Amino acid sequence: MNVYMDNNATTMVDPLVRDAMIPFLSEIYGNPNSLHRYGTASHPAISKAIDQIYKGINAGDEDDIIFTSCATESNNWVLKSVWIDKILHGDKNHIVTTEVEHPSVLSTCKFLEEQGVKVTYLPVNDQGIVEAHTLRSFITDKTALVSVMWANNETGMIFPIKEIGEICRERGVLFHTDGVQAVGKIPVDMQAVHVDFMSMSAHKFHGPKGIGALYIKGSQKLSPLLHGGEHMGGRRSGTLNVPYIVGMGKAMELATQDLEAKMDSMAAKRNRLEDALLSIIPDTFTVGERARRTPNTILISIRGVEGEGMLWDLNNAQIGASTGSACASEDLEANTVMLAIGADHELAHTGIRLSLSRFSTDEEVDYVIEHFQKAVTRLRAISSSYAKVGPTKGGEAAECGIHH
Amino acid sequence: MNVYMDNNATTMVDPLVRDAMIPFLSEIYGNPNSLHRYGTASHPAISKAIDQIYKGINAGDEDDIIFTSCATESNNWVLKSVWIDKILHGDKNHIVTTEVEHPSVLSTCKFLEEQGVKVTYLPVNDQGIVEAHTLRSFITDKTALVSVMWANNETGMIFPIKEIGEICRERGVLFHTDGVQAVGKIPVDMQAVHVDFMSMSAHKFHGPKGIGALYIKGSQKLSPLLHGGEHMGGRRSGTLNVPYIVGMGKAMELATQDLEAKMDSMAAKRNRLEDALLSIIPDTFTVGERARRTPNTILISIRGVEGEGMLWDLNNAQIGASTGSACASEDLEANTVMLAIGADHELAHTGIRLSLSRFSTDEEVDYVIEHFQKAVTRLRAISSSYAKVGPTKGGEAAECGIHH
Repeated sequence: MNVYMDNNATTMVDPLVRDAMIPFLSEIYGNPNSLHRYGTASHPAISKAIDQIYKGINAGDEDDIIFTSCATESNNWVLKSVWIDKILHGDKNHIVTTEVEHPSVLSTCKFLEEQGVKVTYLPVNDQGIVEAHTLRSFITDKTALVSVMWANNETGMIFPIKEIGEICRERGVLFHTDGVQAVGKIPVDMQAVHVDFMSMSAHKFHGPKGIGALYIKGSQKLSPLLHGGEHMGGRRSGTLNVPYIVGMGKAMELATQDLEAKMDSMAAKRNRLEDALLSIIPDTFTVGERARRTPNTILISIRGVEGEGMLWDLNNAQIGASTGSACASEDLEANTVMLAIGADHELAHTGIRLSLSRFSTDEEVDYVIEHFQKAVTRLRAISSSYAKVGPTKGGEAAECGIHH
Repeated sequence: MNVYMDNNATTMVDPLVRDAMIPFLSEIYGNPNSLHRYGTASHPAISKAIDQIYKGINAGDEDDIIFTSCATESNNWVLKSVWIDKILHGDKNHIVTTEVEHPSVLSTCKFLEEQGVKVTYLPVNDQGIVEAHTLRSFITDKTALVSVMWANNETGMIFPIKEIGEICRERGVLFHTDGVQAVGKIPVDMQAVHVDFMSMSAHKFHGPKGIGALYIKGSQKLSPLLHGGEHMGGRRSGTLNVPYIVGMGKAMELATQDLEAKMDSMAAKRNRLEDALLSIIPDTFTVGERARRTPNTILISIRGVEGEGMLWDLNNAQIGASTGSACASEDLEANTVMLAIGADHELAHTGIRLSLSRFSTDEEVDYVIEHFQKAVTRLRAISSSYAKVGPTKGGEAAECGIHH
């Protein structure tokens, strides 16, 4: 049985999305900027896709949604253009973010530090989130931007975006959120929060890899990252990727239709899987209170078992999982979120992330439970660290933000 | 009959390219950065695509080819990162480019001027190209970069890249070329020229819109434009767009296979079309010596006829053409290259670009000749400027770099 449970890394393109895109490759292929019928033929489909995305996040008519090539581009765009607009050409010098952002935010912040920008990396609590009140004391009158993710890619933990947005509004500071792990998975209502910029990525909600977007509140000014032929009102140049725009719109529509029902169905499977693993396998714990997580994610730690060993065994059983962000997985590093919430280095190497999708089935859950348990048994039998420490009493120990 | 002759704006995805991409949407969909089988399943196809692109431009093993979302991104990347690396963090302050670059170069240069960079815009000769010797006197010891396109999008004129590269090497200045209109259309051999950076775009050679690449000679240093998860050796972050990478590789292979034969076939049709239009319709001329153009392009001026009027009539006959770059076409501006080579504003509004592809047929050429002539006849009958000046003697007048 093939079981893909790495949907926070990327998702399968929904076959309905694929079918919607294909006509825009070799049939309706004109450049939408061209004035002739081959160019304008794609306009209705592009308009429809834009509408689908506005609707999916409940953006206002006065807001902009600009297509980019990925959320990495969206994140780089906001951070670097705020640097240019407000720091190089303004009187600000400071950006606030968190320790657990995606690498595209953290690496860009490191780059900006090399340019002389001061960056504050907010610590997270034992749940792996930033509490809104923490932010307040770090904003100064030199702060240009606060950038805090909506939901974490490794734990699924949902950040208090509404509260953070209120603080930013109160203090007159721009607020960006990386919404990649929230959009299409949990309710995202841009008219109910105060967010200036939000990054999105289609391939996290069964759209194609290679397209994202940036939501911009009230069409406010932000220098382009890509200058050029004045596409999309001059905000992001580059020939429009029509097939993927159509695909992102369709994917958004499908993901957000009956979202509550999808969430319930996903959470039921995720909870059953999590409960089973925690109850069957001693000395395991999961990170983050379940009710505050996206409904598809489990980050589970298995004492004495290296995450990479688990990945290997699971992979041999045709199960796709991960030890953390795919964007950092080539390095075999310790799980950064687990380190941030206070796990020691050894423990942070024991994290395994299982992330479901709306295509996950109960049969897959059963299959994962069976093979996960087998893998733990095998690996603990040969584990020097587990043999040395030995099983702890009472099974799943209560440390490091454990919840089950 | 549907006749698409706007292939310098964008091309149809070759059905063979489309078919190569589709399996990577909903079947082999893992994130290539993931360690499990769903991630690694795409590696052979990505490697193959990279090989196809190296082969298509004869890049050396020590060179890098990095995928981007489009040539606009590639152009922005080179110009902005050279600004950061050599000007903000170096002792240079000057960039040299030309008056006739693509908007993604020109707009980025305008942005850099706002940042205090000095930019020289080299003038073009009556052929619409920069002569290599012109460059020499404009390079100073403060020059960080020379950026000159390989072939012009509006005229098809091929620039003396080999000679310009030699001058840059001699003077120790980085050399970037926007190769968008050359790659896949004429021989591009990176080992035969001295080019540090070359931008490419798949959708100009029957690949998909939304993917490009940057060639980097000798894997030399260039700060990333997109920081993040260290994809592609840390040079350009963002989850790999596997379907389009596969498509770009396949498109490159198909475009460069038997390139000479494809060029001959395209040039034969283009020449027949051009000869017919020039001989049948009085007071027309084309820009640029034919032997020095890409084999698919005609920029023709019809005295007394507004380009937009021609587009309208051609569009009614199901013919797709343009007045210039699709990246600027929403503005209905005068043709910038014609202005640069000295045409007055009225004349620069009379340019029509016809750009063929390897899918263009002799029947399409016949059809365009017939309807082009009809459109000119109709529009001249109602043209105030043509009526006022009247037809000139001898037909196609010799001004403004005319060649036929």
